[in-house]
Amino acid sequence: MTVRRLSVYTRCLQQLEEDGVKTISSRELAERFSLQWAQVRKDLAYFGEFGVRGIGYYVSGLKAELQRILGLDREWQVALVGFGNLGSALFHYKGFGRQGFRIAAVFDDDPAKAGRSADGVPILPLRELPREAKARNLQLAIVAVPAESAQHVTETLVAAGIKAILNFAPGRIRVPKDVRLKGVDLSIELETLSFYLARGAR
Amino acid sequence: MTVRRLSVYTRCLQQLEEDGVKTISSRELAERFSLQWAQVRKDLAYFGEFGVRGIGYYVSGLKAELQRILGLDREWQVALVGFGNLGSALFHYKGFGRQGFRIAAVFDDDPAKAGRSADGVPILPLRELPREAKARNLQLAIVAVPAESAQHVTETLVAAGIKAILNFAPGRIRVPKDVRLKGVDLSIELETLSFYLARGAR
Repeated sequence: MTVRRLSVYTRCLQQLEEDGVKTISSRELAERFSLQWAQVRKDLAYFGEFGVRGIGYYVSGLKAELQRILGLDREWQVALVGFGNLGSALFHYKGFGRQGFRIAAVFDDDPAKAGRSADGVPILPLRELPREAKARNLQLAIVAVPAESAQHVTETLVAAGIKAILNFAPGRIRVPKDVRLKGVDLSIELETLSFYLARGAR
Repeated sequence: MTVRRLSVYTRCLQQLEEDGVKTISSRELAERFSLQWAQVRKDLAYFGEFGVRGIGYYVSGLKAELQRILGLDREWQVALVGFGNLGSALFHYKGFGRQGFRIAAVFDDDPAKAGRSADGVPILPLRELPREAKARNLQLAIVAVPAESAQHVTETLVAAGIKAILNFAPGRIRVPKDVRLKGVDLSIELETLSFYLARGAR
């Protein structure tokens, strides 16, 4: 099962919990959130222990288990590198904090930014990353710098002991085998829409 | 097959084409891009006509076919609503243009922004959307406004005839059945990383 689908199910269950729903079948879950039933059924079968025969799954129990698997049962200290338009937008993005991702330090070498702070979070030059990573227990990093700086920034993060990096800069970046790198390509999201528009136009 | 996977394959093939690779097997494709072979083999079997028995697939032919399916064989005129940090970051995001998505008009009611332009693209008040949508043949929209404005903005887009909307604002938004709405939740990307970190820590 892809980790992404686990995230999607977690959000659905969160929504159901807020709506006061106690139990749900895979079929209801699929219908309510426009997911493929066969897939949902197969995926959730892994979590049989949270199921009630003939009824479905306990919403809260299953949600808590998925959150535990996703590492969302704790708070992660995140480094954000790059405080331009995108970095600033990501810094203010509400969704991260809600899932337990706390941007604890921002790094940007722009002299107009470094040394200041944003909502109480320090903006520091990149050379301070090794010390801060240790002092603040930074475990994840978000890279929001121009493409030409991304490899250098990533190497600095890796040298500082960061093992998981979310990269918004376009292009290929190399990391050692023990480091997880995930690139975000926002145009993929638009393509799921153009697919439907193109299909309609055919 | 999910549309997202089509997008991923298209990017892999694009990369292979740039690297001068003419044909590739599903196994090589999976290995080279860290995908699941069983899945790749199953997915690409739909495109048997681009395959060569015992060798694999023609990279350029398969890529062109996937692009056609995804609607990437043409240019789409996109409306961007909201020109704050996130909107501005999305406006400058290089990946959209590369796949044929052209932000042709920006809408923002902030008097400090409306009436100006960015890289030659006009920034207009939202009330001008219906006229501009028609004049500029806007078919897709990106919503990058605060959560509390998102429903109103979406209704304005729908009334102007936009049939596909990519929403970055958090929270639930309602659209009529003939309109495709896709919400982007950036924290899902971080969760694929915390999953691996949490697994390593157990």
